[in-house]
Amino acid sequence: MSAGNLIDGRAIAQQIHSETAVRAAALASRGLLPGLAFIRVGEDPASQVYVGMKEKKAKELSILSTTHVLAASTAQAELLQLIDRLNIDARYHGILVQAPLPRQIDAPTVYSAVSPAKDVDGFHPLNVGKLMMGDPNGFLPCTPAGVHELLIRSQIPLDGSEVVILGRGNIVGKPMAAILMQKTRHANCTVTVVHSGTRDAAMHCRRADIVIAALGVPEFLKADMIRPGAVVIDVGVNRVSDPSSKTGTKLVGDVAFAEVQPKAGWITPNPGGVGPMTIAMLLANTVRAAERAIES
Amino acid sequence: MSAGNLIDGRAIAQQIHSETAVRAAALASRGLLPGLAFIRVGEDPASQVYVGMKEKKAKELSILSTTHVLAASTAQAELLQLIDRLNIDARYHGILVQAPLPRQIDAPTVYSAVSPAKDVDGFHPLNVGKLMMGDPNGFLPCTPAGVHELLIRSQIPLDGSEVVILGRGNIVGKPMAAILMQKTRHANCTVTVVHSGTRDAAMHCRRADIVIAALGVPEFLKADMIRPGAVVIDVGVNRVSDPSSKTGTKLVGDVAFAEVQPKAGWITPNPGGVGPMTIAMLLANTVRAAERAIES
Repeated sequence: MSAGNLIDGRAIAQQIHSETAVRAAALASRGLLPGLAFIRVGEDPASQVYVGMKEKKAKELSILSTTHVLAASTAQAELLQLIDRLNIDARYHGILVQAPLPRQIDAPTVYSAVSPAKDVDGFHPLNVGKLMMGDPNGFLPCTPAGVHELLIRSQIPLDGSEVVILGRGNIVGKPMAAILMQKTRHANCTVTVVHSGTRDAAMHCRRADIVIAALGVPEFLKADMIRPGAVVIDVGVNRVSDPSSKTGTKLVGDVAFAEVQPKAGWITPNPGGVGPMTIAMLLANTVRAAERAIES
Repeated sequence: MSAGNLIDGRAIAQQIHSETAVRAAALASRGLLPGLAFIRVGEDPASQVYVGMKEKKAKELSILSTTHVLAASTAQAELLQLIDRLNIDARYHGILVQAPLPRQIDAPTVYSAVSPAKDVDGFHPLNVGKLMMGDPNGFLPCTPAGVHELLIRSQIPLDGSEVVILGRGNIVGKPMAAILMQKTRHANCTVTVVHSGTRDAAMHCRRADIVIAALGVPEFLKADMIRPGAVVIDVGVNRVSDPSSKTGTKLVGDVAFAEVQPKAGWITPNPGGVGPMTIAMLLANTVRAAERAIES
């Protein structure tokens, strides 16, 4: 199959950004500027890059954004105080605490401290529970929601399809399963969650219409593990050694792209597939939070 | 295979009740009587029976229990006021609102109004989210937690096993999937959730080590849909017509027991399988809520 089977995450993310900008402008015309507060703890280089990208995009869409940078040695209580202040600060409709957090800080405690109404990352257990129960009034976690949008906007048939999700993390695998198994439009899939404890992952992948790889194992999914024509979504971001590069490392996904792509019906490139969608869904969630604030 | 393959839910439930009684007595010796408040709205005959059974068992285990009976015409606001009062009444560590509720009342609103710390039914979205995220500090919904105990105490191998769950309801199917897919002891299963939108349910059932039937279709699971030796758990309670009975109806499960039992490795009878476990887990949750109250 030709390279015509690529799902262009950058183009789809751009489409969503355009829609978000229209919604942000509609709010602005009613006097409300959507606001998003970032919190970054420590100087992790990747976190600096991620927050910088998100902030830049927010500004492009006329979303107010501010980044709070705390020292790597910050005590958990201090971080929780900042979150409490932002929870009641009406300028900010969304709060994002960038992962990873330093060791002295308990991540679940921090994510649970963000007001569920401002939890645009979708990591609060109340929003996870709403997602699971099919209640549309929460927030969906950005990466699985982005994968869902990729599938919908690429017109991949979902109703009744067999989906295999590789990985059961709280950020992608489990919420992805919850999204796709609901009895709703653009879902109603038969979902299997495959993980490190699975006896025969390849057997499951081979029978799937759609394989979503989010286990964090470099190039785990090989061509002989999919059926011809399967849809393959690569969520993985793994740093591996690469003597030929300047830094000595490179990023690869969970899919052995070169061999899988010719056999797949549709496939996400990596980078340029799922990655751009995460920011798109974050900013869409932020505008939704502002819309809810003005409606309530 | 002989009838020696029955999983005796009544015996296992009794074992759990004995353990719960010991824990309740330990609390009583510290001056704390565990308390459970029931709310029943209207005069649904099945609800009367269920609440009556739960109350009787609570008394046997020296758990304080009180039932509030509201008229079928009760306004939602009145029910919410009662829940608010019980949420702050220190005598009650658990609150159970018996389903079904009359039409004028929105069930999700009501279940979300129960304090998560007293949500011994495990239906609050915060507790569903904690379950999904692997946080052990919530409450598990009683029926899937009961099925889990049946499997554990029958020493059915779970780690790495292939589990097919028939049904994706919020009360059984979805939380059951969440329990069994976790990377924890007595779990780590590869879970597929099969439902009304699934193309080939039989294919999935035939490859499963464990089939958990919770879809509400009378005798859906037939012998030719399981592999020899599979473990079969029947959660279904369906009322069907039966001209030979006095009432003209009878209760049957989701499993065609007579033909499936000889082929199964282990199977729950119905009644006498999953049913008794629900009460056992409810009272265990209530005592856990009281233990948490005394520890905090």
